[in-house]
Amino acid sequence: MTAPAGREGPVVVQKYGGTSVATAERILAIADRIERNLDRTPRLVVVLSAMGSTTDELVGLAHQVSDRPAGREMDLLLSTGEQVTVSLLGLALQSRGIPAISLTALQCGIRTDGVFNVARIRSIDTARIRAELDAGRVVIVTGFQGINDADDVTTLGRGGSDITGAALAAALGAGACEICTDVDGVFSADPSRVPGARLWAEISYEEAIEMASSGAKVLHPRAAEVCMEYDVPIHVRSSFHLRVGTWIRGAASIMERAEVVAVTGDAKIAKFTLLDVPDEPGMAARVFQDLAAGGINVRLIIQSASSAHQGRITFILDKEFVAGARELARSWEAGGVTSGCVVEDDVAKISIVGSRLAATPGLAARMFAVLARRGINIDCISSSEMKVACVISAERLDEATAAVHEEFFPAKETAAATA
Amino acid sequence: MTAPAGREGPVVVQKYGGTSVATAERILAIADRIERNLDRTPRLVVVLSAMGSTTDELVGLAHQVSDRPAGREMDLLLSTGEQVTVSLLGLALQSRGIPAISLTALQCGIRTDGVFNVARIRSIDTARIRAELDAGRVVIVTGFQGINDADDVTTLGRGGSDITGAALAAALGAGACEICTDVDGVFSADPSRVPGARLWAEISYEEAIEMASSGAKVLHPRAAEVCMEYDVPIHVRSSFHLRVGTWIRGAASIMERAEVVAVTGDAKIAKFTLLDVPDEPGMAARVFQDLAAGGINVRLIIQSASSAHQGRITFILDKEFVAGARELARSWEAGGVTSGCVVEDDVAKISIVGSRLAATPGLAARMFAVLARRGINIDCISSSEMKVACVISAERLDEATAAVHEEFFPAKETAAATA
Repeated sequence: MTAPAGREGPVVVQKYGGTSVATAERILAIADRIERNLDRTPRLVVVLSAMGSTTDELVGLAHQVSDRPAGREMDLLLSTGEQVTVSLLGLALQSRGIPAISLTALQCGIRTDGVFNVARIRSIDTARIRAELDAGRVVIVTGFQGINDADDVTTLGRGGSDITGAALAAALGAGACEICTDVDGVFSADPSRVPGARLWAEISYEEAIEMASSGAKVLHPRAAEVCMEYDVPIHVRSSFHLRVGTWIRGAASIMERAEVVAVTGDAKIAKFTLLDVPDEPGMAARVFQDLAAGGINVRLIIQSASSAHQGRITFILDKEFVAGARELARSWEAGGVTSGCVVEDDVAKISIVGSRLAATPGLAARMFAVLARRGINIDCISSSEMKVACVISAERLDEATAAVHEEFFPAKETAAATA
Repeated sequence: MTAPAGREGPVVVQKYGGTSVATAERILAIADRIERNLDRTPRLVVVLSAMGSTTDELVGLAHQVSDRPAGREMDLLLSTGEQVTVSLLGLALQSRGIPAISLTALQCGIRTDGVFNVARIRSIDTARIRAELDAGRVVIVTGFQGINDADDVTTLGRGGSDITGAALAAALGAGACEICTDVDGVFSADPSRVPGARLWAEISYEEAIEMASSGAKVLHPRAAEVCMEYDVPIHVRSSFHLRVGTWIRGAASIMERAEVVAVTGDAKIAKFTLLDVPDEPGMAARVFQDLAAGGINVRLIIQSASSAHQGRITFILDKEFVAGARELARSWEAGGVTSGCVVEDDVAKISIVGSRLAATPGLAARMFAVLARRGINIDCISSSEMKVACVISAERLDEATAAVHEEFFPAKETAAATA
């Protein structure tokens, strides 16, 4: 990292999410927070999401004028949300006498691959931001959006402001990428559902990515990937106070790593079953090729040797992809691949995440035993290097999460650890 | 005008104001209107304002985070309103299978002089718009905004979308600049206050400019100036139906011109009096120089020879400038120019407008006589080539407007004219 030209100290990037900028009062609170901490963050870049409900309202308007709002105009529409919040924070800081400038993605050179609605950041020309920092200004940047080669606005998809923050931190060689949110950091389970959930002081990038991919609302997994690649430490912390939250960094620099870092639940999944699939080669290949070509991510494939289930292909996918999969199923019916499909959306996924999971097979067995003791049926299991996931009945998810969490983080021990 | 490269026919620019885009339903109605008329307007550029209440809401948010929101960030904030409407109309047209593209001021090269909040359009690079028209698309442009040399958004002030429409029509050599609004065209008085108001088939640019400057909500006077300079006819018409409204064009092409085209009222004024101004040379000069330097437009100066008012300087200004004038008055008090000021905001202005007014002195006298017959006191009079304005009590404004209108447009005659 080269030394900054103007003010001293490394660049800090702070990202504030939708609940942190939900009202004018909350934006004033962020201005307070920045003002109180200005000595410690003299070179500060702030990335903002849209106000809490704005994106939903804009999507609602779009659905009133179009059956399938998408593409270029949808991105232009959605990008207004962050323009509003960055302008307001700029006005709030300026009225306190703090030099500040709010920049759109175009003004700070965030270039994307140009795919509307789900663009990826390709490059950032940091000249303007560096110049503004050198001039002593707090730089406020619209999250969630970039510009393609035609200067059209392209958005990064839900949670995209995390990616903007991470990409800016990487491009600026920042000392830290702070994800300021409505919880105190990264917990061993969702603290609003599991009261005994433990707040971590630090976890590894890989663990954060696995947790986020398993349904934990930590940060966007691509944001963690970007910071891992550029070795920028992430600090997930509360936007309501200045206490330290959870640091996410390279595994090598973490002294003592837990076997299991989180128990996560995800109810936004559905089970999709194709009936009467002929026992011919190429049938499954066609199904999964079609799904991939349609941009539909399959989370799990359930294979069963039981004769009762012969001729079936079952897979788990996110609820949002069900409509697309149903459309494909109609083409498979027409093509003789299946006689029809069954969708069950009363399923959920419970996962344990930890970087030493694969090396410690006993951990997965403990999870299965806890579920078995409670009579919670496991529909299917998927395991990877750092994760074991079970599909269960959605209505047992909260109970299962609490029980599995208690197995790995007994209340007594947790109390001792946090004492 | 050169022949268009792609589709045939001249370019038409249509501007829709805040009430015409107030809701998703209204935007769908505009999409309907465009669809039904597409054969007659194959090369169509649509300029939109923000949704009715959006600008006020954004200003409200800004005042919650800053005592005096202004400047660069304010313009970035306000410019989101038009981005929302152009995106929504783009989605609405696309969902009907009509090729359409929505462009921001930056994307269609509207450059300004760079003064935030009250910028003036300096140039328009029409290459992108022409290319989109050639490709057969309806082009939808954000009104009210331009871009300065630093690519910062600069807004044109209230009513600025009219100016955008006029400037685009001029730059594109359009066949017409249509101002689509919530009334049927230009009337001889505000039809919501004067039931017998007459709808004109055509008036001159100069008359439109004088009317707009006298408080009539026709269109922004600068928009009419731009169209006059580039000889683009303006068509003020309803956005609710397709009937012909009022054409505004060069006086030379208008067959028969009325002596008086409008009676207009304006209650948004105040009377400002400085007391005990020493009878020394240079005092009045200082006052009006300071006002001009502060960007405060003085509408009328009242000079009185009466001894009771000696040592007073009285002028009429728009209500919005009262706070600024009060601030200046404090500096004049400190400098010995005055002992203090009195502000009266219970005054209003009634005007008659017509291009043959100066050549027909009897017309002004008829106005004064009508007011005198009703015992309405005239505080002061201002007259110009095309306008006679009287300052009266605000509470008599509606009565005065109706009476003066009846004098020049008797109900019987109007009925005959429209029959």
